This record gives sequence, C-alpha cells and structure tokens, in this order.
Amino acid sequence: MRRTSGYVIGVDLGGTNVRSILMDSKGRVWGRDSRESLAGQGKEATIDQIVRSVGVVLEAARSAGISRPSLLGVGIGSPGPLNTKDGIVYIAPNLPGWENVPLVRILRDKIRLPIFLENDANAAALGEWWIGAGRGVDDLVLLTLGTGIGGGIIIEGEVLHGASDTAAEVGHMIVREGGLLCNCGARGCLEAYVSATAVVARTRAAIEQERRTILKRWLGGKLDNLSSELIFRAAGEKDELSSQIVEETARFLGIGIANLVNLLDPSLVILAGGMIQAGALILEPVRKYATEYSLRASIRGVRIVPAKLEADSGTIGAAATVLKRKRLL
Amino acid sequence: MRRTSGYVIGVDLGGTNVRSILMDSKGRVWGRDSRESLAGQGKEATIDQIVRSVGVVLEAARSAGISRPSLLGVGIGSPGPLNTKDGIVYIAPNLPGWENVPLVRILRDKIRLPIFLENDANAAALGEWWIGAGRGVDDLVLLTLGTGIGGGIIIEGEVLHGASDTAAEVGHMIVREGGLLCNCGARGCLEAYVSATAVVARTRAAIEQERRTILKRWLGGKLDNLSSELIFRAAGEKDELSSQIVEETARFLGIGIANLVNLLDPSLVILAGGMIQAGALILEPVRKYATEYSLRASIRGVRIVPAKLEADSGTIGAAATVLKRKRLL
Repeated sequence: MRRTSGYVIGVDLGGTNVRSILMDSKGRVWGRDSRESLAGQGKEATIDQIVRSVGVVLEAARSAGISRPSLLGVGIGSPGPLNTKDGIVYIAPNLPGWENVPLVRILRDKIRLPIFLENDANAAALGEWWIGAGRGVDDLVLLTLGTGIGGGIIIEGEVLHGASDTAAEVGHMIVREGGLLCNCGARGCLEAYVSATAVVARTRAAIEQERRTILKRWLGGKLDNLSSELIFRAAGEKDELSSQIVEETARFLGIGIANLVNLLDPSLVILAGGMIQAGALILEPVRKYATEYSLRASIRGVRIVPAKLEADSGTIGAAATVLKRKRLL
Repeated sequence: MRRTSGYVIGVDLGGTNVRSILMDSKGRVWGRDSRESLAGQGKEATIDQIVRSVGVVLEAARSAGISRPSLLGVGIGSPGPLNTKDGIVYIAPNLPGWENVPLVRILRDKIRLPIFLENDANAAALGEWWIGAGRGVDDLVLLTLGTGIGGGIIIEGEVLHGASDTAAEVGHMIVREGGLLCNCGARGCLEAYVSATAVVARTRAAIEQERRTILKRWLGGKLDNLSSELIFRAAGEKDELSSQIVEETARFLGIGIANLVNLLDPSLVILAGGMIQAGALILEPVRKYATEYSLRASIRGVRIVPAKLEADSGTIGAAATVLKRKRLL
C-alpha cells in the first residue's frame, strides 16, 4: 500500500444535510458523518452541525491512531457566491440568513485546523478529477443536473475560479435568446430548460393541455406528485410525451455542452446529479446533440460520461480542495 | 530606458496580407513589413511571402545593429484550426490549399530561427494583454468582430488553448436554439447574428421587404454595396431600420459576452475589429445587454472596452507569443 502524506477532512454543506468525510492523501476513506443542516434554525445552528460533524470524523481519526499533526486541514464545499481566498460565503441560496459569513475564520476558531473554502460544484469537479470519472484527465467540465444546474471547470489540473470566484456558472448560459424565464431574471438560460424543475414544469403544462400520457394514470390525477424521475421512467416505457420531453431536454443540454466544448476544449465532460440515473436514455441523445452542435475539430475525442462519486462527490471534492491548496495534488 | 532581454519577430498570416513586426521584449517596435499573401497562387507562394516579409524585418534588425543571437524567434499568428505544439496548420479557411501544413518545420528550415505557431485570435488577445487594452489584467476575453467572430481567452496570464488547441471558438457559441443557420452548419451561433456578414444580410432582407431607410438613397439601388460600416453610419444618423439592426446586434453580442462572463469570470472583455470603429454607438448598448444578461455577481467589476492595438494586434500578439513560450512574459 502506498504511503499517505497526510489526512484531510471534507465537508459538504447543503441546504438539507451536512456531510463529512475523513480521507488520506491517497484517496482512501477513514470515516464519514451525515446529519441535518438545520437550515431553518438559522446560521449558528448549521455552523454547530458542521462542527459536530467534523467532530465525529475527528473521533474516527483518533480511534484509527491518526495523529493530530498528520491532519492537514478541513475543506468546506459550500453553495455560493463565495470568496475562496478570504473564506467568506456571500450568499447561500438554500441556507436562509447566510450573508457575508466569514466561515473560514469562524470554523478555524472552533476546529483549530486549517480551513479551506470552495464552491460546491467546483469541489465536485475536483473530486471527480482526483479519484472519479476524471482521473488522469486534466481538462474537464462537470455539470451538476438537479433542481438547478451547476458547473465546475478544471483547466490543466486546476479549478477555474475566475477573477472574482464566480466562474463556471454553467446553468445561466443563455442558449435561447428570448426563451423561457429563468430564476435569475434572464430569459433562455440552460437551467430554464434542463433543470429537474424545468423538466417537470414543461411536462405539467403539456398534461394540462390534455396531452395523452401514461403519467396521468401513474399519478392518478395528483399532478403535484410529478417528478423528473417519473418522467424519465415513462420515457423508458416509450410514453410519447415523456420521450419528447426527454429528447428536448437532451437537445438543450447537448447545446450547453457544445458551447462549453467550443469555448473550453476539454477532453471530458462529466454529468452528475439525479437525471443521470436514467443512464443511456439521457446520455445517448445528449452525446448526439452535443456532437451535432459542436465544431467538429472541438468535439473530436471528447468523452461525455456520468460522474462516478455521486453521493460522496461533494465531501471527496472538499477533501481534495485541502490537498490542492497544500499543493499535494 | 529599461534594458531589453532580446528581440522578437511577429508575423500575422491572413488571407489578404502577410504582416511582420520586429519588437524588443519591452514592447518597442523596431521594424515593420506588409505585403500580399498571394493566397490565390497557392501555399508555396504564401510561404515565400512570409519568408520575404521576415527578411525585411531581419534586415531592419541588421541595420539597427541588433545581433543575430539576440533574436529570440519568430511567432506566427495563423488562422486555424492548428496545432501549436507540433506547429501544424490543419486548415486555414482563407488560404486555399492549406491542409496539414507543418508550417513551423518549413519556416525553421528557411529562416533559421526558432518558430512558434499561435492561433491568430489567441495571438491578438495575448498582444492586448501584453501592451494593449489588457495590460496588467490577467483574466480577459477578446472577441474579434469581423466577417467571422473569433475569440481569445487569457486565464491567469496564460492563453487558454484547451486539450486540442481549439478553445475560444466564441463565434460558434449557440445563443438562439433553432435560430439562423451559421456557416458551421449549426443554428443560432453568435456569428450568425453578429458578424459583419450577418448584419449586412439582415439589413438587406429588411430593405428587400420594403422597409424605409436612408440606406436606399445612399446606395442608389446598388444593394450589393451595402456594408456594415454604412449601416452603423446610418444608425448614427438615427435611421430607424439601421438603429434597430445595431440594437439587435448589440443584444446578441451582449448575450454572448454575458455567457463568457458567467462561465469564465474575466475582469475585462476586449472587443476588436471593424465594428468597434462605431464607438459608443455599439459599445453602450453592448454594455447594457451584457449587464442585463449576466449574473450580478459575475458582471460586477467587468469592463468592456475596445482593443487598442487594432491593425498591429496580430503581429504584436505573434511577437508576444515568442516571449511567452520563452517564459519572458
């Protein structure tokens, strides 16, 4: 077994859960914790949950005989916008009351280890680059497909942060001028077509316009129970409306990927998030459309693959952030 | 006067002209040459023109008493796609017969100096970064607005090449799914709305549909003489149709810039090319739309400015390429 050059802790801060992981520099997992974020109880409650969660994996470290000096630090993957250099979370959409929180300073005082802050989608990309689907690939883009669309960009093995830590806002790339209204206020953003919310809304509108679909029977009239999972399952059973919705979603996602490929020329595009559970049903048309809409010289050799780390990608990416900042990766 | 660490030659290889420049590492110009590319006479004729043009600035170097050992090399800015590492031009759209040309090897044998190949739009971005509008700014995007739309991206002071030297294909970013057909075969590319050709085509179509415009009188019925310069001039005189075309062009360009800002988070966007001669007439609405379509956190602090080097940007950028590859920048 290769020797480790130390141990790192990764924390994934989400609106629902706080998750922690203890890993060594070779990518082996030594401990895990997951608990509620208690986002509704305010900022302090969530910060306490982070400290408790890190406490659990620190206890795991002690049990395993890992010395305190070999703990290199704690990486925090957080929703943003945020400032990675100063360690400040400006706003966290799913964490009410989080505004200009100097998270790194607060946690440093409570945990007494070096703390590093990273945007959650950037962290996910870094995790996949380290020991996931992007292993050995130095130019890649990761898209997280969920209720929103996030992104992380790795260029020559480094996370693209941009001049003010706001790079890789993939979801707000405008792909249809004058198109559907997005939460951000603009029209025609990728997110307005490809997010789980958007997929459900389009399907629902079609059902309300009396389109025939197996979904009606499945839902028994309870349209509120409509979900993107259900729509993909119906598409898998050749339901016409659902197949059409999936095809359209894949087309927009393919266009978004084509734009990323034409601009960044990565060698790998990683798709993460619930939608990717649908497998070939979504991947095949996405690959087709991405190829159709990219320049031939740009798309040649680009692989489009599902993420590997899934549930752990946030914590592993946060742990990788520590190794990256310490120049051990 | 600061001492120079050497001299470099930059060559801008275009479909119409081959231009050369002799500069020192501090950005001072010591010689220039410009001649026809003779593209119609075939590949060898154009390569001979490059060698002759470099010969002229080499003669200027000799006259100035610059010793051969202090000449660091020759940078060639070429249309692409190309391979900067192996020095091969795969295809040069405006140079008939150029296919898989090992330009660096060919020129090295004829010129007997180190030769470095760079994509022309990348070179322009590098030139602006070195001594133009981007001086002192390490994260910037340059768009060249001409008969096509090109781009160059600088991240942390380095040109973004991507995994296969095809990065920064800004013109083929899709901004209107299902929109106008582009030369590349896809629909809705930025270039299909914003290139000089596109601007002329849209205006011409409107005139043919009997839209009132001062352009009709100016052209005296000779619609073939319609140019983007004329359209911008008419917009400057408040011609309604022309103003509308300029506004629409600015909106699409603003959307393209917003996408770049959301993805790359630069601190500067530089606009180069003929269209920018129109000044505030185009810059003001472009800034307005770029702001409207960007995320607030991303566009904050981003300046959108015209290029400074203009006619020299290609040669200066090619010269900067030599300094960059020699790690002198």
